[in-house]
Amino acid sequence: MVFLDDDRLFDAEPKARDIARALYAGIKDLPLVSPHGHTDPRWYAENEKFPDPARLLIVPDHYVFRMLFSQGTRLEDLGVPTTDGSAVEADGRKIWRLFAKNYYLFRGTPTRLWLDHTFATLFGVTERLSEANADAIYDRIAGLLERDDFRPRALFERFNLEVISTTDAALDDLRWHRMIRDSGWQGRVVPAYRPDSVVDPDFPGFAENLDKLADITGEDSGHWSGYLAAHRKRRAYFKEFGATSSDHGHPTAETANLSPKEAGTLFDRVRTGHADARERGQFRAQMLTEMAKMSVDDGLVLQIHPGAWRNHSPSMLQRFGRDKGFDIPTRTDYVAGLKPLLDAVGTDPNLSIILFTLDESVYARELAPLAGVYPALRLGPPWWFHDSPEGMRRFREMATETAGFYNTVGFNDDTRAFPSIPARHDVARRVDCAFLARLVTEHRLDEDEAHEVAHDLAYNLVKKAYKL
Amino acid sequence: MVFLDDDRLFDAEPKARDIARALYAGIKDLPLVSPHGHTDPRWYAENEKFPDPARLLIVPDHYVFRMLFSQGTRLEDLGVPTTDGSAVEADGRKIWRLFAKNYYLFRGTPTRLWLDHTFATLFGVTERLSEANADAIYDRIAGLLERDDFRPRALFERFNLEVISTTDAALDDLRWHRMIRDSGWQGRVVPAYRPDSVVDPDFPGFAENLDKLADITGEDSGHWSGYLAAHRKRRAYFKEFGATSSDHGHPTAETANLSPKEAGTLFDRVRTGHADARERGQFRAQMLTEMAKMSVDDGLVLQIHPGAWRNHSPSMLQRFGRDKGFDIPTRTDYVAGLKPLLDAVGTDPNLSIILFTLDESVYARELAPLAGVYPALRLGPPWWFHDSPEGMRRFREMATETAGFYNTVGFNDDTRAFPSIPARHDVARRVDCAFLARLVTEHRLDEDEAHEVAHDLAYNLVKKAYKL
Amino acid sequence: MVFLDDDRLFDAEPKARDIARALYAGIKDLPLVSPHGHTDPRWYAENEKFPDPARLLIVPDHYVFRMLFSQGTRLEDLGVPTTDGSAVEADGRKIWRLFAKNYYLFRGTPTRLWLDHTFATLFGVTERLSEANADAIYDRIAGLLERDDFRPRALFERFNLEVISTTDAALDDLRWHRMIRDSGWQGRVVPAYRPDSVVDPDFPGFAENLDKLADITGEDSGHWSGYLAAHRKRRAYFKEFGATSSDHGHPTAETANLSPKEAGTLFDRVRTGHADARERGQFRAQMLTEMAKMSVDDGLVLQIHPGAWRNHSPSMLQRFGRDKGFDIPTRTDYVAGLKPLLDAVGTDPNLSIILFTLDESVYARELAPLAGVYPALRLGPPWWFHDSPEGMRRFREMATETAGFYNTVGFNDDTRAFPSIPARHDVARRVDCAFLARLVTEHRLDEDEAHEVAHDLAYNLVKKAYKL
Repeated sequence: MVFLDDDRLFDAEPKARDIARALYAGIKDLPLVSPHGHTDPRWYAENEKFPDPARLLIVPDHYVFRMLFSQGTRLEDLGVPTTDGSAVEADGRKIWRLFAKNYYLFRGTPTRLWLDHTFATLFGVTERLSEANADAIYDRIAGLLERDDFRPRALFERFNLEVISTTDAALDDLRWHRMIRDSGWQGRVVPAYRPDSVVDPDFPGFAENLDKLADITGEDSGHWSGYLAAHRKRRAYFKEFGATSSDHGHPTAETANLSPKEAGTLFDRVRTGHADARERGQFRAQMLTEMAKMSVDDGLVLQIHPGAWRNHSPSMLQRFGRDKGFDIPTRTDYVAGLKPLLDAVGTDPNLSIILFTLDESVYARELAPLAGVYPALRLGPPWWFHDSPEGMRRFREMATETAGFYNTVGFNDDTRAFPSIPARHDVARRVDCAFLARLVTEHRLDEDEAHEVAHDLAYNLVKKAYKL
Repeated sequence: MVFLDDDRLFDAEPKARDIARALYAGIKDLPLVSPHGHTDPRWYAENEKFPDPARLLIVPDHYVFRMLFSQGTRLEDLGVPTTDGSAVEADGRKIWRLFAKNYYLFRGTPTRLWLDHTFATLFGVTERLSEANADAIYDRIAGLLERDDFRPRALFERFNLEVISTTDAALDDLRWHRMIRDSGWQGRVVPAYRPDSVVDPDFPGFAENLDKLADITGEDSGHWSGYLAAHRKRRAYFKEFGATSSDHGHPTAETANLSPKEAGTLFDRVRTGHADARERGQFRAQMLTEMAKMSVDDGLVLQIHPGAWRNHSPSMLQRFGRDKGFDIPTRTDYVAGLKPLLDAVGTDPNLSIILFTLDESVYARELAPLAGVYPALRLGPPWWFHDSPEGMRRFREMATETAGFYNTVGFNDDTRAFPSIPARHDVARRVDCAFLARLVTEHRLDEDEAHEVAHDLAYNLVKKAYKL
Repeated sequence: MVFLDDDRLFDAEPKARDIARALYAGIKDLPLVSPHGHTDPRWYAENEKFPDPARLLIVPDHYVFRMLFSQGTRLEDLGVPTTDGSAVEADGRKIWRLFAKNYYLFRGTPTRLWLDHTFATLFGVTERLSEANADAIYDRIAGLLERDDFRPRALFERFNLEVISTTDAALDDLRWHRMIRDSGWQGRVVPAYRPDSVVDPDFPGFAENLDKLADITGEDSGHWSGYLAAHRKRRAYFKEFGATSSDHGHPTAETANLSPKEAGTLFDRVRTGHADARERGQFRAQMLTEMAKMSVDDGLVLQIHPGAWRNHSPSMLQRFGRDKGFDIPTRTDYVAGLKPLLDAVGTDPNLSIILFTLDESVYARELAPLAGVYPALRLGPPWWFHDSPEGMRRFREMATETAGFYNTVGFNDDTRAFPSIPARHDVARRVDCAFLARLVTEHRLDEDEAHEVAHDLAYNLVKKAYKL
């Protein structure tokens, strides 16, 4: 038994496995392109050492602590900070031991695959984590994290990252991106425009955020036209730092296409806090279409990430804040939801809108048929809970026959867990090769074509779709 | 590498493949029964030569041009006619070259399987279409299309078609069917009764269509009872030409079962254009139940094809008209929707209602449980976007355990692409054999039974369900 | 061809099959734990002989007669009793012959697997049932059913049942459970608290049932607090007989968490028959949360079985009564539906709520994400229409990557078909071993871990989750 088998994620059937191996051999060393994710630009800017193993791999990773919490472990015991600052476990080694003791809970999950890959390839671990070897592995990782060649920029280069995009608030001054640019370091780190705080009336501090938007841009955000102009300026500012995309995480995929007059009236109600829930939703819907129209002009790729019920548990939100594993997928309608936006700009072949979903039932029913005809649409890879071997396989099986491979955009690692980036790309590449190998063994695709598609899925499509 | 491998669509695992081969060998030469589709009866009536390769295989096939359009090719450049008659590409060879250059877009799609099969078995092509060989393949096909043994009737016979059903508007005079009948040709081509234009209040020209219905039948379509009588007459007329089924393509699966008085009042509102959207939907719902009741009397099999959002893009509808690839599936409810109809006639074992869906999430949840208990219900094969290897596999995996094989009705090619009919049946037969082979290798079915089921799925069930 | 192959339900691929065999060898003889089902406690209490083969295996089994009915066989001819007592077929042999003649309809269904297993292992049948051998097999089974070692208690022991739970109405006096306990027999048979008749305002005789509840408990069920106290007393009574769980079969997964005052007012409206449909639904919703709160106190495990549209056909309900195969799954929302309950008690690690579904689209989208974070939640196994090889495989593929194995609870046979219990557990154990074997061959799980997980899924998890 090898800790990290060379054939992982490939079918056991020998012919299929041989083909998958050959396909994978042709793409495994391609540079990583990471067009969407949540790593912290400060890491690359300051290039400080990462903290201890627990604070690097457990405390910030909601995939990890949500599973432990679901089985009765307190988040406090995992060092997850509280909103009121009340004490939580501070000893990284204790957190690590608790994690190691419960590592069996991750059997069959992608987290297990990512962590094993990270342990083996980045930290040279040679056996499965357990209660027995927890301390030894902790010490090994902690020791390596002290070395300069484990600082963020060194890892960026070791990971063969060609480019990575962070996700940045519309009001962000991009100081870390500026610092990276000014440093002369050659690593390519670009921002993405994420305007929730000034687009979503339910975002905390929305009204003040509009004021800040005005301050930053010099545009009068008190009126609809000034507000739109402010967005345009911010987008241009992000583009100066290399941004090629915007990103939008709405509760639904609803869009709207009001007349400028109607939109202006709606904006006034929203801005002054008089809008009801329906109107606030309509405003978010309208803003997706506005962003798409701006994309037609400035070329930013529009990413739509709809359908998460954020912070489902109010008590957990109150005690631990956002992004603590309590975001739950919901049923999402795209066919009616996107229609106003598509009516406006959907047939523009120069526009690039990338759709994501947390609702797999739409792959074959809605997303593939839509992307299989509207030139502006592309399908993002399986997202979040579905960024997993079975999730990826289902995506290919359900989307390919109607949308083909070329209306998809390769892989997003979408992660804030920097050390896991190679592991995540590796899973995607392997699963795609396994899928292609099956098509070849079933004579649905020729082997020479499969090599070309594998290369496109791993590298070319993402660069083209994201203009990177 | 063989262009069209004998083992295509079979599992790579040797035991499963051997069994699949054996099953397929037993059914591959069975006649094709095509109980539902959209070929043009005029072809069989006039028996004219087909036009050039592009006009035969590309220009009329929305599976083909929607994919090209989704990747930025203009429909005008593919020769798709415009509604205002403005010029489009007229050179078949140019269209063909554009298609060949983009043939890679179809990798992993059923269109690719169908076309390769058609190229290889009908036109003797021996290598994959590419930009390089586009002209040679065009010339080869164009040459064959000039021959008499490539005219519609010759192909019908070559395809081993036992019977084919067209789909015909309720107001159609069936002149082509009459011409076929009068010609003495032995090919069996039957119509199906598709009454959208006189059943759907949202159909263009609905009021005038009712007048035409009155003219044709001599019934007073201005009153509910006369309107129903007119339908009965038209159904009888279609039966004279061999029709065994009606077909109904509604936006939803909603049915209603109003009292005759309520229905009459609703009809008056609909007929006079006073009905609102809810009432128009209710009228369509009521008409499904009326059609089912007529089926109890006259024996026509009732097909329900619900859930397509037709002509999703208004601008494309305006420029290119209907059926241009902009029909998008929607979530469809059958359990509540069909209840009024089922309450009325669902337990009648002499009635045959065949359900289709564009929403795969209902296979296991709704359709199999309904068809697995109501004697009147049968499940149609995977439809449209799901008429594909993965789609068929999912259908068998999700429907069989609750509905069994014998509440399904074999295969529908459902196509207007005449040359692809053998390819489509071949895919269905192969996928079913592969599925059955898996059941055999997993000892869930004995091999002798699998042979019987394969025969039933390929031939017996469709004949029985459609009374052909 | 062996009638019951040792490798059934395992992948054909040799490596995967070898691993599956090894995993299965390690668990196949583990005792059966049956934490939820519908066998009749009277059987174990009186220990009378079972009736003839048809009355044992066909007449009471809606899986069996619904399939035959769907293909045109009258329920009367299968001996299914009518509500008005009008005559039905009384000759078990005739029923058996009709069944045998139609046995082919069950090809590809779990019923076929269960029956073949029962025939082979319990009754020593050595060939597939057919019209030809129907009488011989009938005679064989009938002969065995006369023997003392085929009485309920003997079978219970032969089946290696460690414990079985029945499902019992809240007003049940548990006389059979008392008789079992008093008999000195060592078989462990426990009740489960199923309070539909006093919780669901739409249940026939709801008001009278509340009166009976008051009579039995001595609590004033005319007021909210007395009504709740009565529930607590009944739950305590059930616990005396070994109950560890309650069970709730609601049309939806809606919950509510009203203030005591609001709940009291709602109860008064419901009790006096003044509540409208919305209020009656809200009352059921509120009662789920009340039951969860009681579970926090008394430790009963809460099972929620939502989403069946019961008695879909009114004419069949009228003629044959409830549970006749006309219960149809519906789309079910858990994310919004369960929120009030989860807000109240969802993060309590001492509470155990087991969720079931008839809507597979929620496995990956809703149930796994919810159970993967809320400590109170666990996922029940595939239920009813999905209690099948393909259904189980889909469950593992869709739930494991987010919820892991350890937020699931092993297998429920959920059956009233006592002789099929070993067959059902055997299918679940085999499918789980096949799934684990795939993970091992794809190097997603080590083989030593797979053995441990197989043991947990077959035995440990169900005991822990149900506190058995």
